Amino acid sequence: MAAPVPPAVRAGPPTRLRPGATRPGPIPSGRRGQVRRSPASTAGRGLGGDQVEGRQAVRELLAAGTRKIREVWIVADADESEILDDVRELADGGRVLVREVGKGKFAAQARCEAPQGVLALAAPLEEADVDDLVTGTGAGARRARGPGGAKVAPFLIALDGVTDPGNLGAVLRSAECAGATGVLLPRHRAVHVTPAATKAAAGAIEHLPIALVGGLPGALARLRDAGVLVVGLDGAADLPLHELGPADGPVCLVLGAEGRGLSRLVRERCDQVVAIPLRGRLASLNVASAATVACFEVVRQRSS
Amino acid sequence: MAAPVPPAVRAGPPTRLRPGATRPGPIPSGRRGQVRRSPASTAGRGLGGDQVEGRQAVRELLAAGTRKIREVWIVADADESEILDDVRELADGGRVLVREVGKGKFAAQARCEAPQGVLALAAPLEEADVDDLVTGTGAGARRARGPGGAKVAPFLIALDGVTDPGNLGAVLRSAECAGATGVLLPRHRAVHVTPAATKAAAGAIEHLPIALVGGLPGALARLRDAGVLVVGLDGAADLPLHELGPADGPVCLVLGAEGRGLSRLVRERCDQVVAIPLRGRLASLNVASAATVACFEVVRQRSS
Repeated sequence: MAAPVPPAVRAGPPTRLRPGATRPGPIPSGRRGQVRRSPASTAGRGLGGDQVEGRQAVRELLAAGTRKIREVWIVADADESEILDDVRELADGGRVLVREVGKGKFAAQARCEAPQGVLALAAPLEEADVDDLVTGTGAGARRARGPGGAKVAPFLIALDGVTDPGNLGAVLRSAECAGATGVLLPRHRAVHVTPAATKAAAGAIEHLPIALVGGLPGALARLRDAGVLVVGLDGAADLPLHELGPADGPVCLVLGAEGRGLSRLVRERCDQVVAIPLRGRLASLNVASAATVACFEVVRQRSS
Repeated sequence: MAAPVPPAVRAGPPTRLRPGATRPGPIPSGRRGQVRRSPASTAGRGLGGDQVEGRQAVRELLAAGTRKIREVWIVADADESEILDDVRELADGGRVLVREVGKGKFAAQARCEAPQGVLALAAPLEEADVDDLVTGTGAGARRARGPGGAKVAPFLIALDGVTDPGNLGAVLRSAECAGATGVLLPRHRAVHVTPAATKAAAGAIEHLPIALVGGLPGALARLRDAGVLVVGLDGAADLPLHELGPADGPVCLVLGAEGRGLSRLVRERCDQVVAIPLRGRLASLNVASAATVACFEVVRQRSS
C-alpha cells in the first residue's frame, strides 16, 4: 500500500509549482515527526493523520501550519471553489508543492469515500502526553488558553474503543468546536486518525492534542488522582446529563464504543455516570452525536 | 437503474423462506403506498425511503411494522450477529421474504458506503402534512404523545437545503432520539431519504413524520401563524442557544445547509436566531452536530 509519489505535473493557475521547494517556510521547525514516504493508510499503531483528505481538512492543515506538509494533491478536474482557492493560496504561502493528478491516480491514493478532490501528505500527528493534557503543559499548552486568551480548565474526551473513523472524526470536530483541550484514545483495538477520520474531523486534528493510552482504565485513574472529574456516558445511568458537574473545573467525558458502550473497568473509574435523556423510540444516539451533546453541555455549564 | 429482483435463493437457517408469502401479516393495511418495483435510488422528488440499508435501519423497519416491505436482502457471507438474527426473526414474524444474495448482486443494488450486508426494499415513505405536524393529527398523531403516553407539544425540525444524505440521516436519528414530532424538508434542491440517509437514520424514518414543502419560508410563516416558535440557528447570532425559548410550547428549529447556512428569506421568518457558542478554532460545527445540540437543548429545557 506504499503511495507512489506522482511526477510533478502542472499545478495550474493559481497554483504555484516550485520543483524542489517542498520544505516549509513558516512552518515551525524542531518537530520530531519527519516527513516520511507514508503508507496511504495509518495501519500502524501510531496516531496517524499523515494523509489528510477533504477540502476543509486540507485547508485547516495548511492554515494551522503546525505540521510539515510534503505535498497537496488536487484532482485534475476538481470543481473550482473558494475553499480550493484558499488551499492553493495557503500552499503557495507555505511553499508546499501542489500537484494536479489524474482522476485514476487520485482515486488510487484517496482512502475516504468523498475526498472532494483534495488530499495532503503530511508528517504524522505527534502523540500528546496525558500528563501534559492534565497540566496544560507541552502539547497540552496549545489548548490551555481559549481563543480569547483566558486560561481554561482541562476539558478532555476519552473514547473507549470507537472503531468507525467517521465517528472518531466527528467527535474530534465537535470536541474542538466545544473548546476541548485534549483527547484520549486507546492505543489498541480502536480506530486512529485514518484519512476518513481526517475528513470528518475537518481540521480539528491540527488543534486538538491527542494522546494514545495503553489502557484507558489506568489513564482515567491517573486523571482522577490529578483532580479531573471523570464523567462517563451511559444510556442506563440514573443521573441526567445536565446534572453532571461541576464542569468549571477539570473534566473528562468518557464515551463507549458503538453498540456496546462503556466497558465495566472504564465505568468503575468514573466519578459520575450520566445519561442523555432520550425521548424517542430508538434505543440510542450515534456515539458522535452523544459526544457532541455532552461536550456542549460542558460549554453551557461553563458559560453560565 | 431498475433493481432486478433476484430469484428466491436459500434463506438459510434461521431464516424462513416461504415462497409466495411476501404479503405482510401484522403490518397495517390501508396505506396508499403500493409496494412497487422501486428504482434503486430515490432520484424522484418523492420522499424516498424505499431502499433501506444497514443493520439497525432494517431491523427498525421490520420492528416498526408501519410500511409494506417487499423483501430483505442479506449478503451470502454476512457475519452473524445478534442484530442479523433479529432481522431474520422479525422478517419471519412479519412474513417478509428474506433472500440471500451473492456479494456481486448485493453490491450492485446497495447504494450507501457500508450497508453492513443488509438492505430492504419497502414501500416509499409517505409524506406528512405540515398542518398535521402542527396540530398533532394525521401522521403527526404518531408522535403527539411521547413514549410515556403524555401529550407533547409539537417539536419540529426544518432543514434549509441540506444536501448530504449522511447529514440528513444523522439529523433524523438525533431528532427522533430527542422526541421531535416532525421534520420539514424542501421538496427541491435538498436531499431526500436516499439509501445512505436511511443507513445514517438508523430507523428514525419509521417513527418521525417528514413533510416536503415547496418553499420553506412560506411553511415557516404558516408555523408562526399557528403559534409555533420558529428558532433559526446561525453562528453569527447574538443570542446563545441556551437562551432560546420558551421551548415548552410548540417549537421548530431551523438549520441551514452545509457551508452556507440559513438563507435570508428563511432567517426573516424566524422568531429567534440563536448561536451555538463555539470555544475552539474551527469556524463551524457539522450541520448534523449542530442539529443534535439544538435538539437536546430543547429536551433539557422541557425536562427542567
